Amino acid sequence: MILIKNVSAILDKETYRDSVNIVIKDSTIDFVGDNPPESEYSHIIDGSSYIALSGFVNTHSHLAMTLMRGLGEDLPLKDWLNKVIFPLESKLTYDFVYFASLLAAIESIKTGTTTTADFYFYPNATLKALSEIGMRANIGIAYASKPFMDNAIIKNVETRFKELVDKDSKILISLAPHAPYTVSQELFKLTLSLSKKLNAKIQVHLHETEQEVLDYLKTYTQTPIEFLASIGFLDENVIAAHCVWVSEKDIKILKKRNVWVSLNPESNLKLGSGIAPINKFVEAGLRLTVGTDGVASNNNLSVLESVRLVSMLAKGISRNPRLLTTNEAFEILTYNGAQALGFENVGKIKKGFKADIILIDKNTVNLIPNYSPISNVIYSMYPTDVDTVIIGGEIVMQNKRILTVDEEIVKDEFKKILKSFFD
Amino acid sequence: MILIKNVSAILDKETYRDSVNIVIKDSTIDFVGDNPPESEYSHIIDGSSYIALSGFVNTHSHLAMTLMRGLGEDLPLKDWLNKVIFPLESKLTYDFVYFASLLAAIESIKTGTTTTADFYFYPNATLKALSEIGMRANIGIAYASKPFMDNAIIKNVETRFKELVDKDSKILISLAPHAPYTVSQELFKLTLSLSKKLNAKIQVHLHETEQEVLDYLKTYTQTPIEFLASIGFLDENVIAAHCVWVSEKDIKILKKRNVWVSLNPESNLKLGSGIAPINKFVEAGLRLTVGTDGVASNNNLSVLESVRLVSMLAKGISRNPRLLTTNEAFEILTYNGAQALGFENVGKIKKGFKADIILIDKNTVNLIPNYSPISNVIYSMYPTDVDTVIIGGEIVMQNKRILTVDEEIVKDEFKKILKSFFD
Repeated sequence: MILIKNVSAILDKETYRDSVNIVIKDSTIDFVGDNPPESEYSHIIDGSSYIALSGFVNTHSHLAMTLMRGLGEDLPLKDWLNKVIFPLESKLTYDFVYFASLLAAIESIKTGTTTTADFYFYPNATLKALSEIGMRANIGIAYASKPFMDNAIIKNVETRFKELVDKDSKILISLAPHAPYTVSQELFKLTLSLSKKLNAKIQVHLHETEQEVLDYLKTYTQTPIEFLASIGFLDENVIAAHCVWVSEKDIKILKKRNVWVSLNPESNLKLGSGIAPINKFVEAGLRLTVGTDGVASNNNLSVLESVRLVSMLAKGISRNPRLLTTNEAFEILTYNGAQALGFENVGKIKKGFKADIILIDKNTVNLIPNYSPISNVIYSMYPTDVDTVIIGGEIVMQNKRILTVDEEIVKDEFKKILKSFFD
Repeated sequence: MILIKNVSAILDKETYRDSVNIVIKDSTIDFVGDNPPESEYSHIIDGSSYIALSGFVNTHSHLAMTLMRGLGEDLPLKDWLNKVIFPLESKLTYDFVYFASLLAAIESIKTGTTTTADFYFYPNATLKALSEIGMRANIGIAYASKPFMDNAIIKNVETRFKELVDKDSKILISLAPHAPYTVSQELFKLTLSLSKKLNAKIQVHLHETEQEVLDYLKTYTQTPIEFLASIGFLDENVIAAHCVWVSEKDIKILKKRNVWVSLNPESNLKLGSGIAPINKFVEAGLRLTVGTDGVASNNNLSVLESVRLVSMLAKGISRNPRLLTTNEAFEILTYNGAQALGFENVGKIKKGFKADIILIDKNTVNLIPNYSPISNVIYSMYPTDVDTVIIGGEIVMQNKRILTVDEEIVKDEFKKILKSFFD
């Protein structure tokens, strides 16, 4: 049992308490209030200099792309993929993905992320990495039918899913068909059946660039979203990343079918893909979450930076500063993300919820004054202001030091493999 | 004399060196190369774990607005000014501006800013604060002719300018007529004469919102930029903040007259003012710099965050990821900003330049790998990754600790005054 004593806390998007006690029993928040029960606590954290809040949730990332940070700058998506990313990815190994995922997980935790989505090559290596460091995650089995594979891949997907599911209580496994421009309509149908059979969520890239939507319309006379809706694919089990180029009709479909949208504004801007109509999404009441995408196109893993940009863009493109309040942004960053990835009791500081809690020093210069604690998080805090990270009741970082893996060893091993990669 | 030994360094926007020695003599960089001269160094910094680069330059801010961080969230510019900001500002005191400026300066330095622009109430208090902490700055004497004052204010401006100029070799004083919607055409003419007489730069808010431009057009049948050009006001001595709502004609004027533009994308988005046509500015070859604006509308003082957003927006709104390269962004963040504010030999690591240097730990998790050191700064680094800050040859921060003022005392005094402010 852990007791966080006399801590200021943002309990959820609407509730701030100046001083409260939080008790964690096993993986769960057991008490939030003034008079904590007497008990033999294994850890008592003096919270008087901290603000506690739910850890952040990153709903779209490819962690092991830390390999490619800063490669192929200033290129458009297509060239960047074909000339830089794909050739490198053909040389990936299990070990590399493992260390690259660990490196990414360290950065994620240091910037307050307690739950992440991921899909990439060697999901087993990423699972091992996240399990060791202690992150909550939804890891997708990534696949496509073109240009490298065919629809028969779905059998391997099922096998690999079964190998990974239930390996770690904090990690869910999902299906991750890459995108409509690399996945055939037939393979989407097979994916749908498999997701029902396995009761698995689906992560997918959707409507990221204008060209992919135009090409699809030309070939199929439907947008990808229209097609996917027509086969019953779109529902609350789908996390649709990007959604930059969507029509009013597409938005209605996403709303009607309760699809979770993962906004990735940094990647979309940087690759020149464009700006999602976030204001329309907010007005339509879509289920919004936020992701970083891989660091190759971002180029860091702070989902706080991403939600800050989502908030600013919503106001800026609509020229309506009332749109997307700080409270809503906070929910997008925490509870919404957790829901999207399939974690029901994650994303609030509340009895019965999983203990995914971060502490920030409330005397940090950029968090003074503290009129609006949630605004300070959304707009003022720097990503590395996070001091302590607890995930599922485990203290993963304290005083800015990762406790569950040796950061220096991870960096050394990563650099060694990186060197061999280019030799 | 200070020696930074064996440091990796971004010398300027085009030059990265894996290991180099930098010698600082008094306020100036005296040597950059392989074999530093033998000498009695007062400080030898082992640079082997660091990357050295020029400190960042923030060309538009109102430092003492730290008072208002997080106040009046989700309001449009006009309401935010009239209902929240102006009423509070009417209660400001010299002491408050002094401590609020110190608080802001600490945040600025911690996030890598070595030179800042400022204009606000009690510029003498801000000058005292920045002088004590050791920042380079261009401080404007702020004024307006409406609604609170009249054109006779210009005499006071001259007096106040003369009281402050040459008080500190690192601090320039400029004129800061607030904006065309608060400054009469007559007062702009008086400002122009005074700036010539005093040989002073001019900081001004220009074309921030669409409404102010439309109102001006209605009253004067010219845009503010057209009017100011017509009286000979616009030239390389002017730092024009915002420039969100500018026509093609306005852009041509800004180009022809070599005006320095200070882009403030975070403030513009967050207040719903809009997005400046940064891509057109880049294509037109305007002289670009970047600012944070005050924390009341940002809400932090990291100009790195601002330039990151400038870069992403340039690509995103033009849908051209080749636009505004990382090298150009780096120059906007450093050398351009210094030039704009009137510091000729600031913004590069080069013999004869002022020693405004920051060090970042190159083993920081989010800076690995380091294929593209400049890209890592522009896109990957977190603002508080800065370890050491040297300004004009003075070590102002080392190991993330401010050396020139007592941070804890500043925070305590700030909070005390803040409390009295609302009592």
